[in-house]
Amino acid sequence: WWPGGLGKVSTHALVYARLITDGQDHGVHGFIVQLRSLDDHLPLPGITVGDIGMKFGSGAYNSMDNGVLRFDHVRIPRDQMLMGVSQVTREGKFMQSDVPRQLVYGTMVYVRQKIVADASCALSRAVCIATRYSVVRRQFGSHNGGPETQVIDYKTQQSRLFPLLASAYAFRFVGEWLKWLYTDVTQRLQASDFSTLPEVHACTAGLKSVTTSATADAIEECRKLCGGHGYLSSSGLPELFAVYVPACTYEGDNVVLLLQVARFLMKTVSQLGSGKKPVGTIAYMGRSEQLLQCHCEVERAEDWLKPNVILEAFEARAARMSVTCAKNLNNFPNQEEGFAQLATDLAEAAVAHVQLIIVSKFIEKLQQDIPGKGVKRQLEILFNVYALSLLHKHLGDFVASGCITPKQGALANEQLRLLYSQVRPNAIALVDAFNYTDHYLGSVLGRYDGNVYPKLYEEAWKDPLNETVVPDGYHEYIRPILKQHIRVARL
Amino acid sequence: WWPGGLGKVSTHALVYARLITDGQDHGVHGFIVQLRSLDDHLPLPGITVGDIGMKFGSGAYNSMDNGVLRFDHVRIPRDQMLMGVSQVTREGKFMQSDVPRQLVYGTMVYVRQKIVADASCALSRAVCIATRYSVVRRQFGSHNGGPETQVIDYKTQQSRLFPLLASAYAFRFVGEWLKWLYTDVTQRLQASDFSTLPEVHACTAGLKSVTTSATADAIEECRKLCGGHGYLSSSGLPELFAVYVPACTYEGDNVVLLLQVARFLMKTVSQLGSGKKPVGTIAYMGRSEQLLQCHCEVERAEDWLKPNVILEAFEARAARMSVTCAKNLNNFPNQEEGFAQLATDLAEAAVAHVQLIIVSKFIEKLQQDIPGKGVKRQLEILFNVYALSLLHKHLGDFVASGCITPKQGALANEQLRLLYSQVRPNAIALVDAFNYTDHYLGSVLGRYDGNVYPKLYEEAWKDPLNETVVPDGYHEYIRPILKQHIRVARL
Repeated sequence: WWPGGLGKVSTHALVYARLITDGQDHGVHGFIVQLRSLDDHLPLPGITVGDIGMKFGSGAYNSMDNGVLRFDHVRIPRDQMLMGVSQVTREGKFMQSDVPRQLVYGTMVYVRQKIVADASCALSRAVCIATRYSVVRRQFGSHNGGPETQVIDYKTQQSRLFPLLASAYAFRFVGEWLKWLYTDVTQRLQASDFSTLPEVHACTAGLKSVTTSATADAIEECRKLCGGHGYLSSSGLPELFAVYVPACTYEGDNVVLLLQVARFLMKTVSQLGSGKKPVGTIAYMGRSEQLLQCHCEVERAEDWLKPNVILEAFEARAARMSVTCAKNLNNFPNQEEGFAQLATDLAEAAVAHVQLIIVSKFIEKLQQDIPGKGVKRQLEILFNVYALSLLHKHLGDFVASGCITPKQGALANEQLRLLYSQVRPNAIALVDAFNYTDHYLGSVLGRYDGNVYPKLYEEAWKDPLNETVVPDGYHEYIRPILKQHIRVARL
Repeated sequence: WWPGGLGKVSTHALVYARLITDGQDHGVHGFIVQLRSLDDHLPLPGITVGDIGMKFGSGAYNSMDNGVLRFDHVRIPRDQMLMGVSQVTREGKFMQSDVPRQLVYGTMVYVRQKIVADASCALSRAVCIATRYSVVRRQFGSHNGGPETQVIDYKTQQSRLFPLLASAYAFRFVGEWLKWLYTDVTQRLQASDFSTLPEVHACTAGLKSVTTSATADAIEECRKLCGGHGYLSSSGLPELFAVYVPACTYEGDNVVLLLQVARFLMKTVSQLGSGKKPVGTIAYMGRSEQLLQCHCEVERAEDWLKPNVILEAFEARAARMSVTCAKNLNNFPNQEEGFAQLATDLAEAAVAHVQLIIVSKFIEKLQQDIPGKGVKRQLEILFNVYALSLLHKHLGDFVASGCITPKQGALANEQLRLLYSQVRPNAIALVDAFNYTDHYLGSVLGRYDGNVYPKLYEEAWKDPLNETVVPDGYHEYIRPILKQHIRVARL
């Protein structure tokens, strides 16, 4: 149920199924199974296959034959088992592979780093449309008969839109880094070095979860930021949303993934006393004693512009949330029961850890050479917007864990407002930089030339309903009602 | 652009346009304009009318001919102006009405109270589907080959689902109260008593905004809570979402409405010293001095079960956020400039005020007689879930404004976990109580009998794609590719 292309098109499937020889279960393995005849495309005996029906959106995955498949006593030859690692001999004997199980994680890391890169891509499309339209669209605030205010100049529009713009950049940079991480872990796996695998797994699982959830919400927010017209298919946003949201569910449900990250965090905390030093993205936990006590030094709003101040606040928040969870887990007689009971807190601790990774990779990006005059300055502004808007959104975490005071939180908010004013003049340049063609964006509202309203009008006339001036069904349905009403009214 | 039924069906429109007589602009008035011939349905001279094209969702508003309309020198008789309040005489003289302008607010209050009731309805449908399916669906956690765990037993599922269930009830109760408020204000308006109108307007505008935003997000969350199957049209959730989301935009954009509430809040704060006593839902502001200083008395988790403790925390948060905004506004030389700059803070203060209204109306409901043995007890649990989940979500607000400590916030969270366990045994009864038929729910996942999987399978076979075993296009497109691949492979 669900595999794409299965319902009507595919002739063969790769089926994961339990291997049982001589009554003994050897776990799940892969098998190539022919589904349909290569002569007439009819399903082979014992095989029932079909489409699972309509899905979200008017287009989206509805052009894909996601399928349902049922086997009834289907036999396949032994050599259609994928035997690269484990084998079944001609005599029916199962040969366990000595290839380390961890190798399968390599593919998962690959797929998930790809999903993070895709998140940035989808998010930047939505942000590009909403930003361009927010400049074109004017509403209220006309003085002396002059033009109304461009909606992008409203602080409420800026505070919703610019953090999403900043996120699109943040996800792109962390995605680039993740690509490097995949290469690194692949080389290590080939050399049978599994030492970084748990951290890499937690990191990619967490980033997949956080970036896809944020992107799905952001596309819908961008749609709302375009007002009523965002609801039109010609805005491109409904389709983008319907196509994108499955990313929150496929390749690991986002909440389940956060709990995997949390398990890694709890393991790291429990080993802190053991002398095993945390590495990579979890290295900060090695300084947890210091992080549990530190107090943010911000006294004025502009102090929040310093990357090291922001980094410390995010590290302190993440470390304290993990340590608190670990402490609370100890109150349960049974660790598994504790993990089940505290699952929501653990997921929140995982989000804090992952947001810290994104923040720290953005900082690392800013420490590199960045070509183009003034580009680095713009990215610094976006970095501050990204970090401080997260801080505002999760203020409860930061204040509750004691690393920042409510007063410092208010100063961050004040700084954020100033930052929005700095993003504003370059907002269009920052979305033009994604370099999307009008064809690719597929949005009347997000047109590069800003010529939105005439094109919106033009687009409407292309609708098949407009091919006739008097609609189909007028004579059959509308006219009889109208004539009847008129007769009644004249009685 | 947008009016429903305009594009292809309507013969007449009620057009709001500027009335200009003798070159003088008398503002916007209503006019009845005939658009199409009653004989052949063709647009009348000077009128261009058509459909605006496809919208969000596969069904939703796509069965509605939302339209575009253009006039080119269209003349109508004088008596097609709606002249119930203002008139233009036969001689072309404009007669201003002496009916108070405030009367028009009555209709707005009516429409918005209806939208709040609809929010509860849409939300309860989504919650009903997600709750029933969460009981049917099992995943992981099998012990000794026994059945896997029902997903509703996971705390992460409960902490996402049960606050939405509680919201459905909360919105219903505040909706019922709003209906009373509409009757009350209508009677007052008829007696030319406009005293409660500003408060009623702020209250309905705010509730429209907060309940529709929460409901739109909640429907999508319910969809995600159903995992991959929530993405199927047969789950009923994609369509519910696509039909519902325009509610965040129509009848007043939700952010714009919050700013109207904020204006009312700032006015109330500024009049506090004047002896004018705030009434109705804003009465708590009269105790703002006390609320600015109070400290929550919670010492143990169960202290959070007391309605008065919760009410005070929500009042203190709302009052402090409003007073802080008012104070910050004074730092700007120009009030309007300050309002523009602080718009985001003001919108957050408005949300705090509106959430307080919902909480307080839920408490009032619980003070009434509630028929049915044990029903009140269940509603008390839902009330606590509603209030404490909001407190957790907006912890930053509560802690930053100083009314509760981080420690008390953690206790609220602890209590919330216990409450979820209390909701769990009655979760199905609490959604069955909405009394929706399977036909009305339109969801395979939300079936009353829980017989989800056979029906999901059955539903899939109804898809037109499954009418043939070999799909249309096989001979034209798929077969040539397959045959070519096979030939290439054999070379």
